[in-house]
Amino acid sequence: MQDRAYAVFEEQQKNRGIDLEHVKSKLKSIEVETPSWGYGDSGTRFKVFKQEGVPRDPFEKFEDAAQVHKLTGICPSVAIHIPWDKVDDYDKLKRHAASLGVRIGAVNPNLFQEDDYIFGSVTNSNPAVRRKATDHLLECVQIARTVGSDALSLWFADGTNYPGQADIRKRKAWMQEALTEMYQAMDPAMRMLIEYKFFEPAFYHTDLADWGMAFNLANKLGPQAQVLVDTGHHPQGTNVEHIVAYLLDEEKLGGFHFNSRKYADDDLIVGSANPYELFLIFYQILEAAADTNAGVRRTADHIAYMIDQSHAIEPKIPAMLRSVLNVQTQYAKALLVNFDEVREAQARQDVLGAEDAVRSAYEIDVTPLLVALREEQGLPADPMKAYLQSGYGESILPRGKGGASW
Amino acid sequence: MQDRAYAVFEEQQKNRGIDLEHVKSKLKSIEVETPSWGYGDSGTRFKVFKQEGVPRDPFEKFEDAAQVHKLTGICPSVAIHIPWDKVDDYDKLKRHAASLGVRIGAVNPNLFQEDDYIFGSVTNSNPAVRRKATDHLLECVQIARTVGSDALSLWFADGTNYPGQADIRKRKAWMQEALTEMYQAMDPAMRMLIEYKFFEPAFYHTDLADWGMAFNLANKLGPQAQVLVDTGHHPQGTNVEHIVAYLLDEEKLGGFHFNSRKYADDDLIVGSANPYELFLIFYQILEAAADTNAGVRRTADHIAYMIDQSHAIEPKIPAMLRSVLNVQTQYAKALLVNFDEVREAQARQDVLGAEDAVRSAYEIDVTPLLVALREEQGLPADPMKAYLQSGYGESILPRGKGGASW
Amino acid sequence: MQDRAYAVFEEQQKNRGIDLEHVKSKLKSIEVETPSWGYGDSGTRFKVFKQEGVPRDPFEKFEDAAQVHKLTGICPSVAIHIPWDKVDDYDKLKRHAASLGVRIGAVNPNLFQEDDYIFGSVTNSNPAVRRKATDHLLECVQIARTVGSDALSLWFADGTNYPGQADIRKRKAWMQEALTEMYQAMDPAMRMLIEYKFFEPAFYHTDLADWGMAFNLANKLGPQAQVLVDTGHHPQGTNVEHIVAYLLDEEKLGGFHFNSRKYADDDLIVGSANPYELFLIFYQILEAAADTNAGVRRTADHIAYMIDQSHAIEPKIPAMLRSVLNVQTQYAKALLVNFDEVREAQARQDVLGAEDAVRSAYEIDVTPLLVALREEQGLPADPMKAYLQSGYGESILPRGKGGASW
Amino acid sequence: MQDRAYAVFEEQQKNRGIDLEHVKSKLKSIEVETPSWGYGDSGTRFKVFKQEGVPRDPFEKFEDAAQVHKLTGICPSVAIHIPWDKVDDYDKLKRHAASLGVRIGAVNPNLFQEDDYIFGSVTNSNPAVRRKATDHLLECVQIARTVGSDALSLWFADGTNYPGQADIRKRKAWMQEALTEMYQAMDPAMRMLIEYKFFEPAFYHTDLADWGMAFNLANKLGPQAQVLVDTGHHPQGTNVEHIVAYLLDEEKLGGFHFNSRKYADDDLIVGSANPYELFLIFYQILEAAADTNAGVRRTADHIAYMIDQSHAIEPKIPAMLRSVLNVQTQYAKALLVNFDEVREAQARQDVLGAEDAVRSAYEIDVTPLLVALREEQGLPADPMKAYLQSGYGESILPRGKGGASW
Repeated sequence: MQDRAYAVFEEQQKNRGIDLEHVKSKLKSIEVETPSWGYGDSGTRFKVFKQEGVPRDPFEKFEDAAQVHKLTGICPSVAIHIPWDKVDDYDKLKRHAASLGVRIGAVNPNLFQEDDYIFGSVTNSNPAVRRKATDHLLECVQIARTVGSDALSLWFADGTNYPGQADIRKRKAWMQEALTEMYQAMDPAMRMLIEYKFFEPAFYHTDLADWGMAFNLANKLGPQAQVLVDTGHHPQGTNVEHIVAYLLDEEKLGGFHFNSRKYADDDLIVGSANPYELFLIFYQILEAAADTNAGVRRTADHIAYMIDQSHAIEPKIPAMLRSVLNVQTQYAKALLVNFDEVREAQARQDVLGAEDAVRSAYEIDVTPLLVALREEQGLPADPMKAYLQSGYGESILPRGKGGASW
Repeated sequence: MQDRAYAVFEEQQKNRGIDLEHVKSKLKSIEVETPSWGYGDSGTRFKVFKQEGVPRDPFEKFEDAAQVHKLTGICPSVAIHIPWDKVDDYDKLKRHAASLGVRIGAVNPNLFQEDDYIFGSVTNSNPAVRRKATDHLLECVQIARTVGSDALSLWFADGTNYPGQADIRKRKAWMQEALTEMYQAMDPAMRMLIEYKFFEPAFYHTDLADWGMAFNLANKLGPQAQVLVDTGHHPQGTNVEHIVAYLLDEEKLGGFHFNSRKYADDDLIVGSANPYELFLIFYQILEAAADTNAGVRRTADHIAYMIDQSHAIEPKIPAMLRSVLNVQTQYAKALLVNFDEVREAQARQDVLGAEDAVRSAYEIDVTPLLVALREEQGLPADPMKAYLQSGYGESILPRGKGGASW
Repeated sequence: MQDRAYAVFEEQQKNRGIDLEHVKSKLKSIEVETPSWGYGDSGTRFKVFKQEGVPRDPFEKFEDAAQVHKLTGICPSVAIHIPWDKVDDYDKLKRHAASLGVRIGAVNPNLFQEDDYIFGSVTNSNPAVRRKATDHLLECVQIARTVGSDALSLWFADGTNYPGQADIRKRKAWMQEALTEMYQAMDPAMRMLIEYKFFEPAFYHTDLADWGMAFNLANKLGPQAQVLVDTGHHPQGTNVEHIVAYLLDEEKLGGFHFNSRKYADDDLIVGSANPYELFLIFYQILEAAADTNAGVRRTADHIAYMIDQSHAIEPKIPAMLRSVLNVQTQYAKALLVNFDEVREAQARQDVLGAEDAVRSAYEIDVTPLLVALREEQGLPADPMKAYLQSGYGESILPRGKGGASW
Repeated sequence: MQDRAYAVFEEQQKNRGIDLEHVKSKLKSIEVETPSWGYGDSGTRFKVFKQEGVPRDPFEKFEDAAQVHKLTGICPSVAIHIPWDKVDDYDKLKRHAASLGVRIGAVNPNLFQEDDYIFGSVTNSNPAVRRKATDHLLECVQIARTVGSDALSLWFADGTNYPGQADIRKRKAWMQEALTEMYQAMDPAMRMLIEYKFFEPAFYHTDLADWGMAFNLANKLGPQAQVLVDTGHHPQGTNVEHIVAYLLDEEKLGGFHFNSRKYADDDLIVGSANPYELFLIFYQILEAAADTNAGVRRTADHIAYMIDQSHAIEPKIPAMLRSVLNVQTQYAKALLVNFDEVREAQARQDVLGAEDAVRSAYEIDVTPLLVALREEQGLPADPMKAYLQSGYGESILPRGKGGASW
């Protein structure tokens, strides 16, 4: 059945002018980082539902993450959050990861869970708090160095709840001050990925509220600073793929936190609310990856794809698998866009033709392709089914409830 | 100074054709209920900042609430949340309240903080969970009876996170089933106030998502069921005062949960984000209170005004005071609308004249009026200042951190 | 190629437990009405770009609409707008339609383009204007009778731009009064479809602002009044398929105005912004069509599917074709949902399983199915390609610019 | 009466530590530009209601605008739109303006009303169209030179309606190319004010979609390029005053297009939907105007305040007056903020104290102040009343209907 399905698929793509070997090669090289915290309990302000089997420490988180990589083949790295993943011996954690076939990915400082940060961390008007927060950033640079990570992923909860509560422009200066100090402490090979978010937990203003603020800051800091786009961090009615294209063109797109939302920062399974948006993001990336400008191409080729989701009600590992598979699916579809066809339609200002050239790739079922790819790589044809049949989910139940949460 | 300010104010209002005795009488009779949970710790999914002095039990919550009433004179009742305010001896709580000069207000069931409710409470596909949830509703009716409360205020977190997760229409039927059972258990003098909310904590669909669903359900249940409008529970670009006017006209507006938001359900201090909206809500209410239809008038006169806010970073009692004072301020402004002037402008389709007649009341500074009113009632002219000078805030610090939270 | 593709498709669906004969039969019976005004010029407040070949009168509009039906086989009726499609001899128009293989569909009154309606039509405080507006509604009932249409599709631009501008509740009463008169004039077989919209052209309040207001009004009027859902008429963050399911359950969903939007009421090609939403709407409809309640089933089976879009920059007929094809595609996908699988997953509260059962149908490429279906029906395999090759687009160019617009 | 009211006001402000002479001096020096097109007919895509007495040419527009200045004393300049205000003899228009006591303000190119621009103007993939559009920009520079204007105010409707329709990044380059050419043609004293807007008339992507894109472009162009903030051009849930503060800090805020909105770009009377937002914008500006950084201060002092509204249903001149008065009112309130008090509360991280220090200024009724100011300046105490009694509105009725519109 799969053979026949793939044969039909292959012929269709050949007729569409698609080079399937190229597509497969791209699909084999994409890496999607999963976050250690995505394996722990999470929820809403109303309730965190504790699940059985949730990892109790960073080592167990890596074990779960390794399952996702083992089944999909595209998740070799795991982002860590400090102090959630603080351990005495990072070398041990690094070796543990390696023994599981994965590695430590981006290091994420945490500046929102201590009482001192009630009015901000690096933008707090209290210099002692700013010092403490900046020291934590420096500590994370050191941890990145220790664990061999080249990415520092920064999200700040800093902001205010009421008009007048604080001096917005002073806070802007303090943010720049702290990140400049951090930037200078980074090794040349390290990247600082600056995230932005328009609200939550701050409800009046957030210091880094949108891509423009993150971008301007990254520009001031230097080439090692780039913008991190979290797909759930924009007001309704924002064209996210436009921002992606814009940042690529400025060679300042550093990475993604993928998740999905219908309302606010819902942090749901990637691609579950509006899968077309994810496809259109990849379409912009692939478009830039073929640019005549080498800097743009290089930027497109070095994007850190990371998942950042918060499963409130669904089991953790399968939910992460689902996200990874959805990313892979939409990426595969975007690879099937015939860019020549798009460009020709654009050149003749054929609105419907150009739209059709993009959308029709989205409408293709890429299952035969992905199954073929997995078979070539010795991966299970259906990673979700393989997981459910593996017994792993049951094997971790003895961990009990009360695992790590945030 | 106040004397001269009030003299000027009085003359201005006389010139505008406003009957200040009527205004004062309305201001004396409005009651704004504060919620017991508003005195405890709260926060966002990222962090609950624990504050010193937060009440450790329902009795202490009533003590704090009594301060707000003592200083403002308009907050004689306190809403309770079950099981947060569950006590062995409700009579004792009732007497405690009375001794403090306040009473127990609306009873709020809680159906979102038990593990059983991960997939819903009264709309859970598991009949045992539905039974448990409905039993809790019935328990709350009994508690209302015990404490002499005539209002049951219902908010359901029930909903789903993903398309297909559950049968939306079956859940609709189960909601109706549970509330029918509860309705039948209520005493004739009791009111069921049905709240709605478009998202959070559910991120795909919420069973009671908007006023239309709450309204239709209240219609099916009967005259004792009405709609509760939480001012933060609407999508951006919703005209809340229109909904208020509509529900008044249908004699189905039961009450409010007042709070303020710029983004989602931010639950900030009432009137802090867009005070004009609060004024316009009161304008619609006063307009309905003068209707020729007795049912509409009665509805407008029996609205349960309740505050429902969640202070993440500011001290609890002053934040509650600020909300109450903001409600009072906007209500006072709305009372200064010259309705004849509005109606005459409307009758001649004078858009700018009608708008001006409403807005110009909003622009009046009602401080002299409120100070005069407070002096007449033996209340402090500036309740916030009086609170800060009272020493009460310091006196409760020995409660320590670690008080009640949700 | 198509043969092999269909063979694979057929086997896949068989394996998934899908009855393809049933699917095809449903696909053959769906009807999608196109609007006469969709063939004319339209645009934004900034500019209407006049296109060559646009129909100059209702007769030419029907000719264009007939092309769409000829190529797709599912668009046998055409909605008309009065007075845009006013003709001296409706019988002639009816015969013209019949001669083209189509018929006249819903009759749409127009109450927003005369100077008299600057402050509202049926909700205008001026009784003479209300009378005039109501008379137009009655005229449209008569036209429907004349042309043999059984649907009156009502959209009101009525609303206000400023707080205080008008008495919201009086306008509510006037709306009910006018529609009651219209309702009473309708023949028993006629349906009144009541549309709602939250803003534009009114920017403060719109008299029929949301589904709840349209629904309540339809309830008061009687069984022949139902709600019309325009997919672009909701605030951001509204779950449209939830509203669809709700109205189906209440047996009050009458029809759709399909179009697509990313921002406000953008009126773009159906399914071009978020095709998944359209699929999920059909999923809810098919779910209701299999309900145990006969009234719900009947409602689901009698939905009037209508397109209402406004092409500003793209050629009219191909844009309409694209919309129709996108509707057909998403409907076909929804027909491939294995409802038993969904229900079983729901029954065991398997969130990921249930979500997967729905989403996986969406991911299927239905091209082989639709091509097979078209071949069975003697329709072109690719209607868009057939249109472009037909020469029809060129043949109408002599109409010149300056055709009908709104 | 006014004397006593002002005496009370004066004493209150003295007690609050406000220097009223400073306040008055600031109020005397603010200038609010009105737009020529604001005096003509306008509307929505559904209908432009033609009003009697609307100006028939640029000369009459200036006559109407002069009324607004005569009555308020703060509107000495009038923005023009090319080609709407194209005249053969600009010197004559300039002299006409001078004879009326006003002058020509910002020059606004129009690149959205010609058929050539259906797929964009300066970002059109057709080089001939880009050339034409750029030539129009250069023409406007020349007109600015001719009429002695130092501001070119740029808004582009350019964007796309569908994914794939055009190459987003190429269009970005073309935008920069055209504006570079224009920038180089400007005189040293001229400013280019770059506006942004997230949607409408483009519904998929807009080339200059947000402040970040306008800001980045202005940065690339040079010091004479700055950002223009239109208060209605942001997604819901955007903190506009934060953007204002940010741009001030970067010395890149050039000006405003003031108007008011509840939904999308409603273009209503300034301050009619959420007056508090306007106040908070002025609060940020005044805060920056007192900065230690001279560049920030200078930026704050050179903001071009311009009104850009589109009255669909209300009479033009009174609507413009209302907007100007609302701007003046909110500016006056912001001048009453005691900045020392705010800063002290901020310094001790007193959230409620800081919020109160800002909000309490907003709650002050500034009528006595504005009346006193007007009396000092020989202006009518109530400009709106003075206008209505002036007979001007009646005097222009003979112009008839059918005046200028856009």
